[in-house]
Amino acid sequence: MVPMDGWMMGFGGMVAAFSLSLGNRRSDPRPSHNKVLRNALQLQFSLLPVIQVACANMIPVVLVHGGAGTIPEHRQALALAGVRASVEAAWQLLKSGGSVLDVVEHAVKMMEDDPVFNAGVGSSLNVAGEIQEDAMIMEGSMLNSGAVSCVKNIANPIHLARLVMEKSKHIYLSATGANMFARTMGIPAVPTAQLITEYRRLCWEKSLGEANSTVPDEGSKGTVGAIAIDKNGNVASATSTGGLNFKMIGRVGDVPCIGAGGYADNELGAVSTTGDGESIMKVTLARLVLFHMEQGKKPLEAAKLALQHLVRRTGDTAGLIALAPNGEWTAHCVSEHMSWAGATQGRRYHGLKRGEKHMQEVDE
Amino acid sequence: MVPMDGWMMGFGGMVAAFSLSLGNRRSDPRPSHNKVLRNALQLQFSLLPVIQVACANMIPVVLVHGGAGTIPEHRQALALAGVRASVEAAWQLLKSGGSVLDVVEHAVKMMEDDPVFNAGVGSSLNVAGEIQEDAMIMEGSMLNSGAVSCVKNIANPIHLARLVMEKSKHIYLSATGANMFARTMGIPAVPTAQLITEYRRLCWEKSLGEANSTVPDEGSKGTVGAIAIDKNGNVASATSTGGLNFKMIGRVGDVPCIGAGGYADNELGAVSTTGDGESIMKVTLARLVLFHMEQGKKPLEAAKLALQHLVRRTGDTAGLIALAPNGEWTAHCVSEHMSWAGATQGRRYHGLKRGEKHMQEVDE
Repeated sequence: MVPMDGWMMGFGGMVAAFSLSLGNRRSDPRPSHNKVLRNALQLQFSLLPVIQVACANMIPVVLVHGGAGTIPEHRQALALAGVRASVEAAWQLLKSGGSVLDVVEHAVKMMEDDPVFNAGVGSSLNVAGEIQEDAMIMEGSMLNSGAVSCVKNIANPIHLARLVMEKSKHIYLSATGANMFARTMGIPAVPTAQLITEYRRLCWEKSLGEANSTVPDEGSKGTVGAIAIDKNGNVASATSTGGLNFKMIGRVGDVPCIGAGGYADNELGAVSTTGDGESIMKVTLARLVLFHMEQGKKPLEAAKLALQHLVRRTGDTAGLIALAPNGEWTAHCVSEHMSWAGATQGRRYHGLKRGEKHMQEVDE
Repeated sequence: MVPMDGWMMGFGGMVAAFSLSLGNRRSDPRPSHNKVLRNALQLQFSLLPVIQVACANMIPVVLVHGGAGTIPEHRQALALAGVRASVEAAWQLLKSGGSVLDVVEHAVKMMEDDPVFNAGVGSSLNVAGEIQEDAMIMEGSMLNSGAVSCVKNIANPIHLARLVMEKSKHIYLSATGANMFARTMGIPAVPTAQLITEYRRLCWEKSLGEANSTVPDEGSKGTVGAIAIDKNGNVASATSTGGLNFKMIGRVGDVPCIGAGGYADNELGAVSTTGDGESIMKVTLARLVLFHMEQGKKPLEAAKLALQHLVRRTGDTAGLIALAPNGEWTAHCVSEHMSWAGATQGRRYHGLKRGEKHMQEVDE
């Protein structure tokens, strides 16, 4: 199917269905079938200005996740507090007219700065005990995007990804080249020791066989991501990760690969994924969710289908946040946990265990 | 839509349609609708052994491309000769029972060794005058895949990608890490000078403003790729590139990103793409083609729709080769040229200009 404009999926589809159902009320619809279709199309196009106005009054939404997997009990409250703080700050920015790119970048930056998550400060360590970060950002009007992989000594890889998008002629830089670009952009190199937390060092030592094996380990989970839609229907997606604990030097996961770790298209929606990067890449998970939405599925149904496919083909689990051009959204995982939070006018949401969703009304 | 098994798409659909049309012959089909559907499903599953036999008698096909873009006249014959030689060797391997992974790897290796193509020997140079190679290989039964980006001094990056798939616990390694892995695998480091051709050096000097501007330049085109299907319906895809001429250090294009530069799934088919990596990544071109095929489109229609989408959303051009689980295939581009060749039992195909397709019958 040719991808359709967001408003066409959300509104045009309804218009066409409405016209065709009128046609079906005729006693013998067959001879006029083409005419009915033509009328439906004309009606659809004649409603364009109305639809665009509707689109311009979209209810803004922002969603964040702090990684899918099994989160040890002693880290659950910290993870929830982290995603809720991130979404609150991002919401205030979105509400005050911030661009969706600024909003998702800010949300992810806050979680990169929060040592509980596996991104920025608190990233997992590779086999050599080093930090190696991946990040990607994408906006949905022109599909502009920026990604970095295997960068070192960077406090906020998501900001570097944004600079790749806006200040370089490419969209994806890796390793030394990405760090060279960071220097030319004036981004300070942070000493590795400042990015390593005690918890991640213990996890690494455990993998090395040197630490007490009773250290509760959430494995490599804790990737962070954010998606948002503004009142004009613009969407964006941002994802950042320290990758797998004890990964090989140079290992790249799903995050910097457009369509795997994230995707944003005003015509389709926005997604950020989390889980085992190897499996997410194999099924291009973010784009897969949007393909289902393109076929008429709502975000939750689309997320379920895409995650079922991942489970069936890879035997792995994952989670994701997704939103449609009409503002409908979902936070869904097939792993045991995924910390996530969402905000829209007057409402806040969050969850941690699979299927959990808390809503709170707020005055604002 | 939930992805369906290849044989279900190709054969199961027909079976279900047949059963349902029988059902529709009843005077009032509505009360028995569920029963008809159940019968259709039972019939489908009862035909499983027959279908698998049909699948096991698939006609093997191999296709290769040598890059899309505008190929200068003095390089056209060389490019055509290169893809035809590659496909002939790959065909002989496929015919003699070689695995699809061996077939696509061998096809790409031959083109990496051919200095006319922008991969292996003859790769484009980055801004620093260095070679930086990307490659990806994928097989369709388990979605196993291997990718490398920004590797240096490697004669056959596609072989390294295969080793990442088979000998590492990851599927994608970049830069220094990928080169370290190559050393542990015993792959010899080739001096950069052995990989640089006079033509690519002239193109680089032209970008630097130092060479005679009359040097006919094919830009950065010349990525190579191969896809194949064997008699059991197994598919594979391989792609390798030197990337953009004068690219930044660390720039990564579409090739190592699964779903952008290539994809292979026995349930859907196989694709290898070529063109401007930045645009191909933005639309996850390889996976997009297969999504259209999943919706019932034949490879040519699917390729047209996916490339139209790329043109509409990025303003760029590209080309690709694609094949379906039933062995149908296409080589299609919206750029001026794409050198390509194909082989199946008793027939050889090739083309260079957009829309061009030559067929030759051969005794074998």
